[in-house]
Amino acid sequence: MTFSIIGTGNTAWFMATKLAAAGFSCTGIYGRNADSARSLADRIGSTSYDLSNGVKDDADICILAVSDHAIGEVVASLSFSKAVLVHTAGSVNINVIKDVAKHTGVIWPVYSIVKNNLPETKDIPIVWEASDEPAKKVISATVNAITNISHEADSSQRISLHLTAVISNNFTNHLFAIAEQICVERNLPFTLLYPIIQQSVNRLASLSPATQQTGPAKRHDTVTMHHQLDMLRQHPQWQRIYEAISVSIMEMYKD
Amino acid sequence: MTFSIIGTGNTAWFMATKLAAAGFSCTGIYGRNADSARSLADRIGSTSYDLSNGVKDDADICILAVSDHAIGEVVASLSFSKAVLVHTAGSVNINVIKDVAKHTGVIWPVYSIVKNNLPETKDIPIVWEASDEPAKKVISATVNAITNISHEADSSQRISLHLTAVISNNFTNHLFAIAEQICVERNLPFTLLYPIIQQSVNRLASLSPATQQTGPAKRHDTVTMHHQLDMLRQHPQWQRIYEAISVSIMEMYKD
Repeated sequence: MTFSIIGTGNTAWFMATKLAAAGFSCTGIYGRNADSARSLADRIGSTSYDLSNGVKDDADICILAVSDHAIGEVVASLSFSKAVLVHTAGSVNINVIKDVAKHTGVIWPVYSIVKNNLPETKDIPIVWEASDEPAKKVISATVNAITNISHEADSSQRISLHLTAVISNNFTNHLFAIAEQICVERNLPFTLLYPIIQQSVNRLASLSPATQQTGPAKRHDTVTMHHQLDMLRQHPQWQRIYEAISVSIMEMYKD
Repeated sequence: MTFSIIGTGNTAWFMATKLAAAGFSCTGIYGRNADSARSLADRIGSTSYDLSNGVKDDADICILAVSDHAIGEVVASLSFSKAVLVHTAGSVNINVIKDVAKHTGVIWPVYSIVKNNLPETKDIPIVWEASDEPAKKVISATVNAITNISHEADSSQRISLHLTAVISNNFTNHLFAIAEQICVERNLPFTLLYPIIQQSVNRLASLSPATQQTGPAKRHDTVTMHHQLDMLRQHPQWQRIYEAISVSIMEMYKD
């Protein structure tokens, strides 16, 4: 199978190197920045193109791997009849590309990809979607070349899953950052918390987090909660987080 | 060295088995429930006692490993002149035991201990405190028998660290539980999120979470944020969490 890629960022590097390694042939890497496009093309022995010169409709699948806010602008210049056009954005509906290609789809890796440290395993989950049967054949073959963990989901489901990734990954990281800052303020090593955090995440592999909840809010221990809120008085935003999460925990375990 | 333990729960099992394995000799396990005390005493080849008959002052260190709210009641019946008395509660001041023993302290494992699945490593962090030099000698020897990761901290620091454990462990677990419930509601497998969660936690070992923040709030992407808030309209408590954390992220990365 043949593929082309529009974009030269982290996702483009991931998709291009994985597909090339799987034996797919690349017809071209398209980028706004010619040097960036050449760098990725050199990595997989392909050709690079300046995006402003237009994208050739010469591959089985064309992977649009640009930032979410650039999709609309890039798509406006495309018109495909042969290639299946897919975008790679978790929170963007498939419809944004439906008018510029006969066959469309979405391929979203549920992972934080960094091009200088690409994952070597085939265990990066990919959620995908196809507009029709011909697109489905091409996209599923492409996805299966990259991962062992694929899941077909419509745009509404995928956008919900993107929300859960924000909640369980971006938001938890902010809680870690708050904990780290409190440790710095009190002259404590944040590393003391690493084992208990790692322990809880390891448990996720086999146990539902809903059954593993502990802490003052779960115990409805209002004395400790008031004391801890008072300790956060220098950080009213963190107090609001503390209150909102505690209320939600008490609500989830009210019986 | 010799030790005694008051309590028969998870922490009691952890401390007793670790100290016995390290060659410490146990003078007695004291419990309200005689069967529970005998069970732990049998495990380490010691003697068990009914707590209501009084605790002997016959060990180098007596470890009070009862639930936070029971400490006051149990302490009221103690009077030690020989044994160093320590409690094991992260959020409780050392002062609550100062009137019943000449030498006091705190030994707090920063970990979620489950007696049926005790950690085998010596990598469970322990935060400790001692009232005076004689207590310090006994407590540091006890701590070093259990862990390679010990940290001396006063009550104020330890209680702050307990708060950071609530934030980075109990609160994050609730976010995982919310994500899981959204997945169930939308017929998505929660397991798709496990690799990205594990990835973020693995990064904590070498990178500050404050430098790893991503997501709509970090990008000040208000369009996505409003859309995601709308997706949570059936769960107003979760909307309040979403808003509070997003505001805090935008504040932390406002420049």
